Amino acid sequence: MQKIILDCDPGHDDAFAIMLACSHFNVLGITTVGGNGYLPNVTRNALQVLEVLGKTEIPVYPGHAGPAIQELTIADNVHGSSGMDGPHLPEPTISAQSEHAVDFIVRSAMNEEDLILIATGPLTNIAAALHRQPEIAQRIRALYFMGGGAYCGNWTPAAEFNIWVDPEAAYTVFHSKMPLYMAGVNLTRQCPVLKEDIETIRSFGNQTGKFAAELLDFFAKDGDAHLHDACAVAWVVDPSLVKDAFLHVDVELNGTLTRGMTVTDLRVLQSADCEKDLDLDSLKRWNDAPEDSPFRGLQPNTHVGMRLDFNRFRQLLFSTLQACR
Amino acid sequence: MQKIILDCDPGHDDAFAIMLACSHFNVLGITTVGGNGYLPNVTRNALQVLEVLGKTEIPVYPGHAGPAIQELTIADNVHGSSGMDGPHLPEPTISAQSEHAVDFIVRSAMNEEDLILIATGPLTNIAAALHRQPEIAQRIRALYFMGGGAYCGNWTPAAEFNIWVDPEAAYTVFHSKMPLYMAGVNLTRQCPVLKEDIETIRSFGNQTGKFAAELLDFFAKDGDAHLHDACAVAWVVDPSLVKDAFLHVDVELNGTLTRGMTVTDLRVLQSADCEKDLDLDSLKRWNDAPEDSPFRGLQPNTHVGMRLDFNRFRQLLFSTLQACR
Amino acid sequence: MQKIILDCDPGHDDAFAIMLACSHFNVLGITTVGGNGYLPNVTRNALQVLEVLGKTEIPVYPGHAGPAIQELTIADNVHGSSGMDGPHLPEPTISAQSEHAVDFIVRSAMNEEDLILIATGPLTNIAAALHRQPEIAQRIRALYFMGGGAYCGNWTPAAEFNIWVDPEAAYTVFHSKMPLYMAGVNLTRQCPVLKEDIETIRSFGNQTGKFAAELLDFFAKDGDAHLHDACAVAWVVDPSLVKDAFLHVDVELNGTLTRGMTVTDLRVLQSADCEKDLDLDSLKRWNDAPEDSPFRGLQPNTHVGMRLDFNRFRQLLFSTLQACR
Amino acid sequence: MQKIILDCDPGHDDAFAIMLACSHFNVLGITTVGGNGYLPNVTRNALQVLEVLGKTEIPVYPGHAGPAIQELTIADNVHGSSGMDGPHLPEPTISAQSEHAVDFIVRSAMNEEDLILIATGPLTNIAAALHRQPEIAQRIRALYFMGGGAYCGNWTPAAEFNIWVDPEAAYTVFHSKMPLYMAGVNLTRQCPVLKEDIETIRSFGNQTGKFAAELLDFFAKDGDAHLHDACAVAWVVDPSLVKDAFLHVDVELNGTLTRGMTVTDLRVLQSADCEKDLDLDSLKRWNDAPEDSPFRGLQPNTHVGMRLDFNRFRQLLFSTLQACR
Repeated sequence: MQKIILDCDPGHDDAFAIMLACSHFNVLGITTVGGNGYLPNVTRNALQVLEVLGKTEIPVYPGHAGPAIQELTIADNVHGSSGMDGPHLPEPTISAQSEHAVDFIVRSAMNEEDLILIATGPLTNIAAALHRQPEIAQRIRALYFMGGGAYCGNWTPAAEFNIWVDPEAAYTVFHSKMPLYMAGVNLTRQCPVLKEDIETIRSFGNQTGKFAAELLDFFAKDGDAHLHDACAVAWVVDPSLVKDAFLHVDVELNGTLTRGMTVTDLRVLQSADCEKDLDLDSLKRWNDAPEDSPFRGLQPNTHVGMRLDFNRFRQLLFSTLQACR
Repeated sequence: MQKIILDCDPGHDDAFAIMLACSHFNVLGITTVGGNGYLPNVTRNALQVLEVLGKTEIPVYPGHAGPAIQELTIADNVHGSSGMDGPHLPEPTISAQSEHAVDFIVRSAMNEEDLILIATGPLTNIAAALHRQPEIAQRIRALYFMGGGAYCGNWTPAAEFNIWVDPEAAYTVFHSKMPLYMAGVNLTRQCPVLKEDIETIRSFGNQTGKFAAELLDFFAKDGDAHLHDACAVAWVVDPSLVKDAFLHVDVELNGTLTRGMTVTDLRVLQSADCEKDLDLDSLKRWNDAPEDSPFRGLQPNTHVGMRLDFNRFRQLLFSTLQACR
Repeated sequence: MQKIILDCDPGHDDAFAIMLACSHFNVLGITTVGGNGYLPNVTRNALQVLEVLGKTEIPVYPGHAGPAIQELTIADNVHGSSGMDGPHLPEPTISAQSEHAVDFIVRSAMNEEDLILIATGPLTNIAAALHRQPEIAQRIRALYFMGGGAYCGNWTPAAEFNIWVDPEAAYTVFHSKMPLYMAGVNLTRQCPVLKEDIETIRSFGNQTGKFAAELLDFFAKDGDAHLHDACAVAWVVDPSLVKDAFLHVDVELNGTLTRGMTVTDLRVLQSADCEKDLDLDSLKRWNDAPEDSPFRGLQPNTHVGMRLDFNRFRQLLFSTLQACR
Repeated sequence: MQKIILDCDPGHDDAFAIMLACSHFNVLGITTVGGNGYLPNVTRNALQVLEVLGKTEIPVYPGHAGPAIQELTIADNVHGSSGMDGPHLPEPTISAQSEHAVDFIVRSAMNEEDLILIATGPLTNIAAALHRQPEIAQRIRALYFMGGGAYCGNWTPAAEFNIWVDPEAAYTVFHSKMPLYMAGVNLTRQCPVLKEDIETIRSFGNQTGKFAAELLDFFAKDGDAHLHDACAVAWVVDPSLVKDAFLHVDVELNGTLTRGMTVTDLRVLQSADCEKDLDLDSLKRWNDAPEDSPFRGLQPNTHVGMRLDFNRFRQLLFSTLQACR
């Protein structure tokens, strides 16, 4: 069974990421990071989700409360003040570990073979682990993460929330030579929460289904929610769900309008039609820059998720939730 | 007949812009600017195109040789050292005017009613005119321009050539409150040069068709050329050729990776599917920024061309060229 | 008699610059620019100063109301809402010229030999003239300007007001290859307004002395004013008043904290003691950058005023004011 | 005896910092960081200096090899390829600790009272410790560091080497609310290496004096060296050696010309004469920014060293070296 570490900031969609991860992988640990909510809240939320799932043996390691450089921005407009508003859950009876998330990540990456990291929050912990022990970039099999966007943002016109919260951390990750798989908003907007799906999930009648439906009642109350974080985990569960392009991606740190943007070199794609009929199998350089331009020859470093098979994603989600307790 | 001024830097695709403009509008003047080639070259090229067309009564006003802030970048990798390599033309017998392009633009905009400006090069002259006389923003009916991109660049991953050459000028234009119509590379990549079309045009047998075919022989020799600039003029000739969205666009001046990017707020579009099935008639805000975010409430300022009716564009181009001498 | 053009934004200290200029030079014209106050105000102020001086034959040419890129910032906290609060003067009876300041500057620079430009406001007009006709950089003898600072700012910790108002214009000027003489705040803070000097000037009993004293009553009411702009003109009147160093200066356009800073390469000075015992005659490179650093070998482009002979400056000011009508 | 940790990157002048620190303080540990040389070299150099001093009981903790964001820049042009060229020393017989420098710093700061940190290299380790455990900012008594400059740089016109190497780390430190004492190049240029002093030190005849003289033979061979790092330690040994001003300092991360600059708000100083006759006892705000400016009211956060008593510094250095073995 694939060993993974899930670094997250639950967050409603993180909760679905946890459900998928715990159902399909050997989860060595869940690490938490300030993002959708403050660190104590997202850590408590992670513990609560594990209790709902009955997976209390999975250890939770709190990590960084916020970025090294800038103040933490939270998304309480989306997730409520608890970070996971909606369901009413008792305080968790299990506790978080005392080892710091970064130390756990470094230790695991150095000791385990073929470990996959999945990150669904700001990349603060992952970057700190890379800074502490750069070798983990070569040790792990891959990092799948929800963040950024191939040609759009959500928090700003150019930047997606997870990258916006800690652009310097994202910069470190994109420059780390880790094998990277990016589930950006261009991909995750393809897994919307449908009203009918909430009722389907509720109808399962199990404890997890009830919890999941209550999460979605809150999360989708404004009618336009997406299971961003679940998408990154689903990609690992079934790689055939996502069609990706191997592209050069870098993070803008300095732009007045574009700080936190994942600048993706789409010029290699023959067509601008990025999602529908994209002929990803016949990539072709489309690039008018002169030969001596610094913008020539940008090396691909990231597998950018471009198209999601939404119906099969839903089937995976349904079957997984139904099989939980 | 609609009065226009065409500000250009011919340039192969500018030549087609001139052909369309002179055939369909009352062209008060053609103004030139350093861009695809150096100013003396692009000015000569403009004069030569007018001679081919037999439109030598249209005055040509040379403008700025380059941007105010940075050194001029030319695109001789695309257009050759003359700025319009391919056809062999004699030196023009007509001469350019002594009045500076900027003075001509200001004078015309202040004296004429409902003037439309069309710009197919860097926005250096337009910005200088706005700086000299800000009232022209209210005087003109619209500025249609080829430049930027709604979600991609061509010269860099983020920036299109015309904006990259003079980002500060573009910034001035986007902040001018002029009615703006942007034919960015996301749109103009939808009018590729097809090999079969070159032969169709040559087969017209007229002087303009022969010239146009020779331009395209050179321009499309690498197999991946687009009639970017012609697209901006065609949009004015027949607005039904282009489907646009009224969006907020701003220019990044400071980014390390994104300088010269036309940052377009696509969050208002319901779907990421930007070109194909975009429901432009039911725009819906898609924006997770909190209410007090500086990124909330960005006011639309630009009609961004999103979809081109390529077949009808070709028909317009063919019929126009065939009707020339 | 040396021909000059004075580009200014009066402003209290600009008024003293006008007094010095009109007394010692053949002033071809005064050009105005938005800066200390709005353009209509500073233009009226310039006309009023000329009327006080009885120099109504000197033409005044209004120029740009503000920068090309950013909104105008005015210094009404320093100069009051009129731009020159304090003295009560009638509306001027003379009028400004209709020719634009930039056209006047270009025309004069191209027609006159050995013209000196003196600028005491934002460099908006000078930059626009350079953009319109780059040759003026070679035509004029020098540009003396009040602006920037060799190692400090005033409006921000890093930036002086005139440069802060229009950093892009300053950038154009510093990159123009014009012979540049910078009277920055590091120099002009050496000419404070002394309370005793106000009374000396008032005691002259002439119309100009009365006007000047009233200007200073307002300007120095908070006890910490400097005749910044007069310093730039005095430098031209008597070059021995200022000791300068020929240094590399560039303008920061992108810094979060340093936009508008005149970054001066002081590493060539042997000692950090920039004003007192600076051995300007034996400059010595003090530079730890490696040989292949982009920061090696920065070419000097600006004569940076470092030390002012304040007592002789005062004597020049007193004798000039006393000799006015 | 004051407990300290010295974080350094020896480095010739770091070696003098170690000599001073080990002679006057209870050094809990020496931590090393990539900077003047690569981490393995500067760690070895630290061990060698301790062996020369006979202080082999002081533990050495290697820390970060370089910054989190950018590639490490080393100063081998100044310090040679070993980081401490000149003296020929055997490989050290003592070894570095296995605990990471950052963990040691955090552990010590949380367990000890009134600890003083002294940093003479890039602030990479200090920033990482603050990120891991922000409470150390309140736990320690002070951080004295060599880095930055109040009004000048050395590596670039605007930036000093230690800050230039890791601007983001410096940013974290300046925003940490630690009590900060900055020995910038404006101060440390006041402790030059004099040729006569080298011979004085050699004449002491002891092992440390011989080693120190050999360091200086290499370090000052180009005639313009300064004992930058020793200055920071001397300030702690005898605070009366340095006159400081309590000022607002921030780090520029984004400037094209000014990245890594320690932007110091000198506007509060009455006079520009920063070193000589500076009336530090009667600071007075000198600030023309309007009341509502973001630049008003910048809170002091750093004790900026302004003037060094060079002769007493030399006496301290001499007496210290002479008393070593």
